[in-house]
Amino acid sequence: NISKLKKKKENKTQQSEREHDTRNMIHSIKVGISLVLVSLLYLLNPLFEQVGENAMWAIITVIVIFEFSAGATLGKGFNRGLGTIVGGGLGCLAASFAQNIGGVGKSIMVAISVYICGSVGTYFRLAPRIKQRYEYGVMIFMLTFNLIVVSGVREKVWDIARQRLLTILMGYIVCICVSFLFPFWDSDELHHSTVLTFHHLADTIQGCLEEYATVVSENKSQPNYSLTVCKSVLNSKSKEESLANFARWEPWHGKFGFCYPWEKYLKIGNVLRELATIILAVGHCLQASKQDMASLRESHSAQLETCEAIGSRVAWALRELGDSMNLMRKCEGKGTILAKLKAARAGLSFVISTSKIAKLENGQVLAIASLVFLL
Amino acid sequence: NISKLKKKKENKTQQSEREHDTRNMIHSIKVGISLVLVSLLYLLNPLFEQVGENAMWAIITVIVIFEFSAGATLGKGFNRGLGTIVGGGLGCLAASFAQNIGGVGKSIMVAISVYICGSVGTYFRLAPRIKQRYEYGVMIFMLTFNLIVVSGVREKVWDIARQRLLTILMGYIVCICVSFLFPFWDSDELHHSTVLTFHHLADTIQGCLEEYATVVSENKSQPNYSLTVCKSVLNSKSKEESLANFARWEPWHGKFGFCYPWEKYLKIGNVLRELATIILAVGHCLQASKQDMASLRESHSAQLETCEAIGSRVAWALRELGDSMNLMRKCEGKGTILAKLKAARAGLSFVISTSKIAKLENGQVLAIASLVFLL
Repeated sequence: NISKLKKKKENKTQQSEREHDTRNMIHSIKVGISLVLVSLLYLLNPLFEQVGENAMWAIITVIVIFEFSAGATLGKGFNRGLGTIVGGGLGCLAASFAQNIGGVGKSIMVAISVYICGSVGTYFRLAPRIKQRYEYGVMIFMLTFNLIVVSGVREKVWDIARQRLLTILMGYIVCICVSFLFPFWDSDELHHSTVLTFHHLADTIQGCLEEYATVVSENKSQPNYSLTVCKSVLNSKSKEESLANFARWEPWHGKFGFCYPWEKYLKIGNVLRELATIILAVGHCLQASKQDMASLRESHSAQLETCEAIGSRVAWALRELGDSMNLMRKCEGKGTILAKLKAARAGLSFVISTSKIAKLENGQVLAIASLVFLL
Repeated sequence: NISKLKKKKENKTQQSEREHDTRNMIHSIKVGISLVLVSLLYLLNPLFEQVGENAMWAIITVIVIFEFSAGATLGKGFNRGLGTIVGGGLGCLAASFAQNIGGVGKSIMVAISVYICGSVGTYFRLAPRIKQRYEYGVMIFMLTFNLIVVSGVREKVWDIARQRLLTILMGYIVCICVSFLFPFWDSDELHHSTVLTFHHLADTIQGCLEEYATVVSENKSQPNYSLTVCKSVLNSKSKEESLANFARWEPWHGKFGFCYPWEKYLKIGNVLRELATIILAVGHCLQASKQDMASLRESHSAQLETCEAIGSRVAWALRELGDSMNLMRKCEGKGTILAKLKAARAGLSFVISTSKIAKLENGQVLAIASLVFLL
């Protein structure tokens, strides 16, 4: 039975790897197509006569902002556009101001403005709130401002600024259009990974229970393959945060509207991570106490069975929650789940005086109850 | 006593925030200075006559690669340099090949090479092993290759490539020189954060023990301020990995030589995270079972005292390990620590039949023992 489960899991991972690879391929092809499209600005004579050397900026834009998912591309492009406009505007002002001074004062003026922009911009870039969403925009602001102020010493700046903005816009439009052909949504990814976490945790609880049942009955030592999933759940925080960050940029699509509550996903993720901590601890506990378990089973078999029943009920509740989240309906079973969990808690408090492990699962139930209230 | 501890902690966080702010300021000033230095390429006539419009690339280089720590700057600069050289070389080859064909074939040739470079480059960029360390280099490779192939349609490419490389090199040299003035080392940061984690975990164990002792004696409910530290330890994996990644780029400095074993830090971090999981579980357990504890204390006071003694010994061992790591000497106390831990385990296995919590701490001891062997 367990070897069958393992094979199933291996097949699953192989399949998801293949899927991952296909997605990477599609993304690569999309980038290639966009690059060829913006290269046409150079290759076709009528287009080149319009934009000239500035066509370069379209190519740079495509390479720099074309990210894997549509949300990330949109966000980066928005940052780049805003940074270019603000930096270009301020740069033009500073440059024409310096040009009015003239002489050596001009160069000094330019150097001072470059210094101020550079240090203030960098300071803002390091501030946590800006770093999270607008770091790239601030960087582009600094870049554009400096380039325009400095080249304003020698050329007419308004033309450069206008043309660069135009070519960057072209690059951006090409990126967005191609990226929306077969889009990868970070919101989908976040949604699915959260649902998957519910199921993984449920599987782990089930796996723990089964493993420990077989150990008790056969006294064999099995590898605890199931705990690795829990550990990967624990390390998922930063990935989830970046996904939610990009998902905020994404427009209305599929099941997700504007202003979709992505913070809730992060909160659920946090609760699930806490639950994973508890499950890990329970798992370690069960592992460490195999022989004790056997003797305990003899003396308190009824209580242990209650514990097992509660464990599988918790797993069932997790699966139910994951499924209802997957289908994006309000959890219908909310009442029944709560009632069952409460019954489970009542059962637990009956057992609690004899088995400390039950106490741990009690914590688990508490975590799940808080999760249900969160939904 | 506890309020004193809290005040001390608040002072500490305020101080570290102020320190953080000063470091950000210094970094901002450094960026400003480097930008002024590269702007001189534009501002001073003799320099501008040498490099011309390509001075732009020096400015772009400074803004893009100047990162907070010296290691990250070095790594990014290395990536940028390598990407420029390889991309420029291949781009020149492709461009001169296309020029030999001439006519419409030339444009088609250029488009094909742009497509191939774009899609293959993007595919490699997404591969996990390259993504971790060389993503930026691959991006710059694509950028340079495309710009050179495409502008090769209209201009002589060797001159452009040579001059751009030269200006990028200038920008890089300026960055490195300024960044090494008051350097921030990621290796220091990683070292200190690991040492700090040892102490934080020790503090948490101590805090748990104290809290639970007071709760038992006074039956008051205290806020468990200490567990938040544990949770932050759990989420530190990605930060540690990026630090180790940058630390690999850093040259010989201070106490760290070349080829310093940064992977060991990651391993220790993993073990510490597992320990944090266990401590969290124990903490939750103690919280959930306050009233049971009181009754347990009456019935099994001797065993509980042993547990407390073991807990504080574990905390002591963690502090000792952290200190010896901080001073970078081989842990002298290794023998004594191991002996004490073994004595603790022996004590535990004596208590184990009455208290399940002891089992958890047993797991703790196992984790620490594995940690000691790792060092």
